[in-house]
Amino acid sequence: MSDLGEDELLELVVPELPVSSAAVVPTGDDAAVFRLRGDTVATTDMLVEGRHFRREWSSGYDIGWRAAMQNIADVVAMGARPISLVVSIGMPAVLEPQWLADFGRGIAAACDSVAPGCGVDGGDLTGADEIVVSVTAVGDMAGFEPLRRSGASAGDRLVHCGVMGRSRLGYELLSRGAADRAGHDPRVSTFLRPEPPVGIALAGFAAGGFTAAMDVSDGLVRDARRIAKASRVALSIDTPALAPHYEWLEANSPAGTAPATVREWLLSGGEDHGFLATLSPDVDVPEGWTVIGSVTTADDSGAVMIDGEPAVGLGGWDHFAR
Amino acid sequence: MSDLGEDELLELVVPELPVSSAAVVPTGDDAAVFRLRGDTVATTDMLVEGRHFRREWSSGYDIGWRAAMQNIADVVAMGARPISLVVSIGMPAVLEPQWLADFGRGIAAACDSVAPGCGVDGGDLTGADEIVVSVTAVGDMAGFEPLRRSGASAGDRLVHCGVMGRSRLGYELLSRGAADRAGHDPRVSTFLRPEPPVGIALAGFAAGGFTAAMDVSDGLVRDARRIAKASRVALSIDTPALAPHYEWLEANSPAGTAPATVREWLLSGGEDHGFLATLSPDVDVPEGWTVIGSVTTADDSGAVMIDGEPAVGLGGWDHFAR
Repeated sequence: MSDLGEDELLELVVPELPVSSAAVVPTGDDAAVFRLRGDTVATTDMLVEGRHFRREWSSGYDIGWRAAMQNIADVVAMGARPISLVVSIGMPAVLEPQWLADFGRGIAAACDSVAPGCGVDGGDLTGADEIVVSVTAVGDMAGFEPLRRSGASAGDRLVHCGVMGRSRLGYELLSRGAADRAGHDPRVSTFLRPEPPVGIALAGFAAGGFTAAMDVSDGLVRDARRIAKASRVALSIDTPALAPHYEWLEANSPAGTAPATVREWLLSGGEDHGFLATLSPDVDVPEGWTVIGSVTTADDSGAVMIDGEPAVGLGGWDHFAR
Repeated sequence: MSDLGEDELLELVVPELPVSSAAVVPTGDDAAVFRLRGDTVATTDMLVEGRHFRREWSSGYDIGWRAAMQNIADVVAMGARPISLVVSIGMPAVLEPQWLADFGRGIAAACDSVAPGCGVDGGDLTGADEIVVSVTAVGDMAGFEPLRRSGASAGDRLVHCGVMGRSRLGYELLSRGAADRAGHDPRVSTFLRPEPPVGIALAGFAAGGFTAAMDVSDGLVRDARRIAKASRVALSIDTPALAPHYEWLEANSPAGTAPATVREWLLSGGEDHGFLATLSPDVDVPEGWTVIGSVTTADDSGAVMIDGEPAVGLGGWDHFAR
């Protein structure tokens, strides 16, 4: 890579990237300009090599896919349509230029898969000692009201769509050398290329009755606690409703994995990028969503209960405490 | 810092940061939501320790200021109002938490200085081996047309506002140990805390007649070439019009600096964050702007001429070639 300048590297990756259908001015100017139908949404995430991913597990394509998906999920969690991504990347000189092209293809595939029309309309490319990827997603509320974390009320149902615990299981399997990334082992696919159920989420939100929503990125209990705190309510999770997730994890776990460990992965594993939400009791549960509990009290407690007991020791993911 | 988790660190910096006046949903949810008057603008830049800054020269405040300003400048270069910043930071565990609070104060001061109402409405905080800062700015066209790089026509005047070469001079002085950052030496202030002339730029753009514009971040000649290429014209720079900039640099350069060196700093030094633009011949030159040349031909050449000679060897800044 050291033989190539910034402009030559950009020429490798930019052709891989779709332009957003909402772009009035696409990439290549000082800034991109978009024409939206409603309020503007923005969110950002940073991925650092050795902390969020390892190059021996994740290809450039995987990292591009994942960086795009986690930002798309955050936009969707507000009830908005993903419109565009701006992407900064710091990369070490020893990295082969092909990595960058793969990274671009992964971003493009993620957009195409769940958010057609969403492209990449800006970015920055620089040298760094380790790979650092920062993606900012822009979304369009398109006339809908934002689904905040603070809108849950006592009596609402707690609902979820997407997978649960699979990313953590994939991490465990790769850590133990018990899965092969090149073989496209389905047990590690959520970890390498998470697939937030964007279509299910947006169809549900559009049908109405949702009072709060968030992307589950740091684990079910930790993220549930965020809704509980923001809404000043207590949330109750019923684990029998999680049985299909538990059973999948159990069936795919290494032999001899203790049930308590599977339960921990289920309740505190992060980076699945499902959606956790609260739903008014007055509406039907939309297609693809499952009731997993309820909003029990409006007592300011911010508590999360699991089968009637306080959730303890399931704090989920903290990149500093790791 | 290793004693503090992500949430505790956020509690140190978030109170330092203003909320954008256009925020409907500020920081603290999955994404921020803004109500704009016109089209949405987005741009991003990444700063990496050891490549874009050194901790012994730049304080956390300086880095926050600079990261904010260079993104604000890119938004303004489109003719837009800066609305909000989303900020990702990767920081090593050895860094004292105070650095992060200073970083936040630097961002807040930059917004307050040139873009009141622009706040910080989202971000990400993670560990990293070196400090990596990624800022994305969101802007509002507010009913104006975007000022693209591609709009220059033969007969337009080439105009500039802001300082020129000072950031490069500051870098040279700090490199040679010939200036003290703690002493607030004015010779290094542009390098440490650039001040794009946002008010002058936006007032000029609003008055009308501008055909192309850009933020000068990679050096006058390199950035002029970008306008020339995008507009398929040739640009001519007249160095007598740059005399005040040259004289300031000469007066503040280390004794014995060759005139050719001063000239190189002037024409190829980056990161001053002035604005380079083209202006229709039909309008007056607005307050604070200087005519520094002209658009000479519409011949597709993308050439930049200096006093009638082709600009050679003044390519400016490339973070990979550095």
